[in-house]
Amino acid sequence: MKFLRFTIEGEKKLGVLEDGAVKEISGDIFKAWGYTGETYSTEEIEWLVPLEPNQVIGIGANFAAELDDLPEKGPDMPVFFFKPNSSVIGPSDDIQIPGTIEEVKFESELAVVIGKEASGLKEEEVLDHIFGYTIGNDVTAPQYFHENGHWTLGKSFDTFTPLGPVVETEFDQEKAVIEAFHNGELKQKSPTNLMIVTIERMVSYLSHVMTLQPGDVILTGSPVGAEFLKEDDEIECRIDGIGSLKNSVRKAKQITPVS
Amino acid sequence: MKFLRFTIEGEKKLGVLEDGAVKEISGDIFKAWGYTGETYSTEEIEWLVPLEPNQVIGIGANFAAELDDLPEKGPDMPVFFFKPNSSVIGPSDDIQIPGTIEEVKFESELAVVIGKEASGLKEEEVLDHIFGYTIGNDVTAPQYFHENGHWTLGKSFDTFTPLGPVVETEFDQEKAVIEAFHNGELKQKSPTNLMIVTIERMVSYLSHVMTLQPGDVILTGSPVGAEFLKEDDEIECRIDGIGSLKNSVRKAKQITPVS
Repeated sequence: MKFLRFTIEGEKKLGVLEDGAVKEISGDIFKAWGYTGETYSTEEIEWLVPLEPNQVIGIGANFAAELDDLPEKGPDMPVFFFKPNSSVIGPSDDIQIPGTIEEVKFESELAVVIGKEASGLKEEEVLDHIFGYTIGNDVTAPQYFHENGHWTLGKSFDTFTPLGPVVETEFDQEKAVIEAFHNGELKQKSPTNLMIVTIERMVSYLSHVMTLQPGDVILTGSPVGAEFLKEDDEIECRIDGIGSLKNSVRKAKQITPVS
Repeated sequence: MKFLRFTIEGEKKLGVLEDGAVKEISGDIFKAWGYTGETYSTEEIEWLVPLEPNQVIGIGANFAAELDDLPEKGPDMPVFFFKPNSSVIGPSDDIQIPGTIEEVKFESELAVVIGKEASGLKEEEVLDHIFGYTIGNDVTAPQYFHENGHWTLGKSFDTFTPLGPVVETEFDQEKAVIEAFHNGELKQKSPTNLMIVTIERMVSYLSHVMTLQPGDVILTGSPVGAEFLKEDDEIECRIDGIGSLKNSVRKAKQITPVS
């Protein structure tokens, strides 16, 4: 099932994508929902981010270039970071480059959506707590990484987390291939078996630190090949079975941090 | 005005503390609210965290030991970090030490509560966007700081962000003194003029990165003197004019990250 959010005639609605049409639903996708009976075509709607995340968590440096490069054992302590909800945009919204810099990095990622409260999960319990999957672009301004290693600012600018286009609940993450096309040119393409920390281990680890909630979104890391974007570029993040994010790049009007 | 949240007979309610009594209110403290007419004594209620934060942001290493130690100019790029909402607890709830370690650090802090959406603020516009102030204890397990500098995990365990007891809207942050008493012994005591990055600069800086929202809580840094807590300790974080957080320390039942 492919869940989405959209606007039509200025109204925000929930829907599911079925047979190429958008069937409107009402309710809470994590609890109970039902069809309203309305159906729209994909052309007449404006796509929104498919869920308003409870929070967004990312993992650092999680892909090997090829199978032979995979370490025998992942890191004892993976690098995790938060991205604020204010950075989240929809699948066709513009990415805005902060006024003080010229370029930002794209990172195409498979994003996990948690469906049930999760604390202290064993790895084998993880998949049962995942509601579905979407695509995330972990846009980053490494110019705002702190010299002592903190990534917070560089990951947190408004528009730095495109998500969507749908949350797909029937998806085999083990067979997913994550791609990015920069102005149409393929720059990232890796299957999930190149992940250093598996989704099961990542979610289990996090759930031992913090109680995860329905709507938590976990960006599971980006394949090798991420590059920089400049004004007027277009970046497409694609995962077959979920869809595509296609975001254009603009300069932000806002003047960025005074120093 | 001192806003609080509490339970009585199992029901969650909002209130204001006036003349030592709790007057129940209804509505949204950031928008419109009114008195219900009910009044309770402070003894009969159970104090909850005074707001459910939209998000919690902290700043690193923000106090000098004394005025002579203050740098002429603060850092060009302060260290900021997020703490998840799942780490937030009320003013008398227990802090739980993760199962794998013996000690956690306390850090008594003045916490700013944002009241209006804020983007690209000048320093002189900041106070107008602050709704009020509360107290935060930025509990930390430095054992879970990543060797490359990321603090995310070490700041994010459940129960690591006691907040409260009230949000005080009439408070002069320039005259505040932040204290911590560890098992009754004074360990931290600093006025806010020992802050390296002022509240005005900190909020202005953040607002140039991300659009801040009503309910965002910013922990403004902890005075020198923070120490470690072990099982059965009590930590009181106090700011005259706001009140006290008094949290006891327990060992978590949950088994923490497998590695």
